[in-house]
Amino acid sequence: MTSERPLEAITAELGALADRPSTALSLALIGQPGSRYQIPTPAGVIDLDAFDRNVARMAARAKAAGLVLRPHAKSHKCAALARRQIAAGAVGVCCAKLAEAEALSAAGIRGILITSSLAGQPSAARAARLAGIDPDFAITVDHPDGATEIGEAAQAAGVTVRVVLDVDLGMGRTGVASVDQGVAVGAAIIAQPSLKLLGIQGYGGHWQHMAGANERTAAVADGIGKLTEVAAALRAQGHVFSLITGGGTGTFSADAAQGILNEIQAGSYAFMDREYREALGDDDDGAFETSLMVQARVISANAERWVTVDAGLKAFATDGPEPEPLGEAWAGSKYRFFGDEHGMVTRPRHRAVARGERVEFTAPHCDPTIDRYDLLHLVRGDVLVDLVRVEGRGASQ
Amino acid sequence: MTSERPLEAITAELGALADRPSTALSLALIGQPGSRYQIPTPAGVIDLDAFDRNVARMAARAKAAGLVLRPHAKSHKCAALARRQIAAGAVGVCCAKLAEAEALSAAGIRGILITSSLAGQPSAARAARLAGIDPDFAITVDHPDGATEIGEAAQAAGVTVRVVLDVDLGMGRTGVASVDQGVAVGAAIIAQPSLKLLGIQGYGGHWQHMAGANERTAAVADGIGKLTEVAAALRAQGHVFSLITGGGTGTFSADAAQGILNEIQAGSYAFMDREYREALGDDDDGAFETSLMVQARVISANAERWVTVDAGLKAFATDGPEPEPLGEAWAGSKYRFFGDEHGMVTRPRHRAVARGERVEFTAPHCDPTIDRYDLLHLVRGDVLVDLVRVEGRGASQ
Repeated sequence: MTSERPLEAITAELGALADRPSTALSLALIGQPGSRYQIPTPAGVIDLDAFDRNVARMAARAKAAGLVLRPHAKSHKCAALARRQIAAGAVGVCCAKLAEAEALSAAGIRGILITSSLAGQPSAARAARLAGIDPDFAITVDHPDGATEIGEAAQAAGVTVRVVLDVDLGMGRTGVASVDQGVAVGAAIIAQPSLKLLGIQGYGGHWQHMAGANERTAAVADGIGKLTEVAAALRAQGHVFSLITGGGTGTFSADAAQGILNEIQAGSYAFMDREYREALGDDDDGAFETSLMVQARVISANAERWVTVDAGLKAFATDGPEPEPLGEAWAGSKYRFFGDEHGMVTRPRHRAVARGERVEFTAPHCDPTIDRYDLLHLVRGDVLVDLVRVEGRGASQ
Repeated sequence: MTSERPLEAITAELGALADRPSTALSLALIGQPGSRYQIPTPAGVIDLDAFDRNVARMAARAKAAGLVLRPHAKSHKCAALARRQIAAGAVGVCCAKLAEAEALSAAGIRGILITSSLAGQPSAARAARLAGIDPDFAITVDHPDGATEIGEAAQAAGVTVRVVLDVDLGMGRTGVASVDQGVAVGAAIIAQPSLKLLGIQGYGGHWQHMAGANERTAAVADGIGKLTEVAAALRAQGHVFSLITGGGTGTFSADAAQGILNEIQAGSYAFMDREYREALGDDDDGAFETSLMVQARVISANAERWVTVDAGLKAFATDGPEPEPLGEAWAGSKYRFFGDEHGMVTRPRHRAVARGERVEFTAPHCDPTIDRYDLLHLVRGDVLVDLVRVEGRGASQ
């Protein structure tokens, strides 16, 4: 029997989830030959060998480029996977949301940077509490009022909160929109004795899925200079900081070439979903393996031209390309959404399909796909070797 | 202080969820004036008055038409909301998936019909276990092998499982595709001493969102006769049964007019999402109120033409129309997805928007939207009156 850790440890981590009949079935399968294809479906499946190779490859790329790696946990939201990244050299993880950070912090992850700004006193108080637990905790701010809220919460909690000033690189999603706004936020930070300016952040989400390494390099070269400008303006005001953080899976090469960032937040490389696979092609940035799959089962095979599987709108992210059936057995088959719970898969031409048959799909967009699952099935080859909680799933508040 | 039930009861039901800092904040707000607009966001919000009126209206419509109502719980996946429907006259609820049924059964809901077929011995054994707990449990079958699997599981468990033969009305998703297939499944059911044929099911999912009552009526008239044919063929083989179940929110009037179904599975009427609202317009079938909202907050307001809210791809279903901001304050504003965690909302022309401001949106498609949330915030007016678990959220296995 091959498993990653004792069954008792797995069951303890799963908590109330272990009481679900479907989880009990998965637990009983751990370590059995062929168990990968006996789990209750639909299921999120991680090929652990491919995942670990992706993690090692990105760690090596970052090291070679002299960059610190703080992978974005919004891709997996899972403490067990974060621990593997940290063991391979990452300094911690990024989180998109406060509740996601709280969930991973409660599971023991340290070195958390929340990459999105907060609004409101209750949220600021929660951030201060995280800073009290995690000495390497930090959070972005993009408005003077945000700095004031967190500063006052930090003072009330008797902690220092490290903040990172978020700079908009052209998306207009979060971040200061101008150098002047940056200086104003800097002044608001200085005014709070319980805040420490750790550095600045810029994330070009709109650059990540551009097709073509040259196109991405040009876009990054065009936009990332904003970080240098804001850094210079802040330093001219007397701020002292070293961290310049940002970047993603698609722009790693371009970011490294620009030499402005010293910390990289890439996350999707760990899974290499269909969206990134299609955008990055054979570029260096795309040299990662598909490690995340969704496994489904044929539950009805009465129609002539297709079969129905038990994975639909609730099993996959629906904002990107459609899921793609994997493997020779399903060569040429196409998936279409068929309601909340079901998918249509066209019958392969070369063989008949049996009711109950398994099929694995690529994840269309990894982050919201994993967010559909309370737990992930970790496999090596055809053996289920571990079950892990997705602690941050649904924790968007 | 106005709350639906004692705080201790709410906390006990929430279990480990009550330990989340965001949940603790919500619990502390229950019953306070204005608390609706202080909850951690993004949040699923149910206007309980509107929900109850919807439930009463559908109960009255079913009663007037002489139809039994077994609302589909895949719309809400929530025992507390199912209990309100049952208290208003529903005979139980439908579930789409086995794990969803297990979750609601564990929360005390009885009279569950699983409307989707299963495949495999482990799933059949789980269905037999549910039948042992719930005397009114039933499950659909659409293949002789499915009948055999459940029959053998029922015999092994020493229970009788009531089955409903699923008939494809033209979607090709599940169900027998022909009268001959129906007769074959009927024979397989008869061959299992631990199965009882309770009735037949036909669901025209493809008819539900057709615009225009006349169009829906014509489509139903054209397709639903298949149920009569299959029923006649089964009765000619000696089967005795009375239940003919199916239908949805969009086809209620058409189903009632045809007089073939005697049980209705509609679910979405309880919320009236944007997708149904647009399809049903002023038809009788659309005479329900919007009771499900997603509440978000402005977390960044640095851009000139829009603001950024904390609800994105993970907060809304993305398979239907886009979320729509509600209320006079946001009149004319449009929402666009802005990544996993964020949305862009165009600034209203008539006023400035403050960082931290609240905005509520219609749910684009209710079922997968609610599936994003572990709990729902029940409100009356501007007061948060209850927090309930979505027990079946993520329970698709």
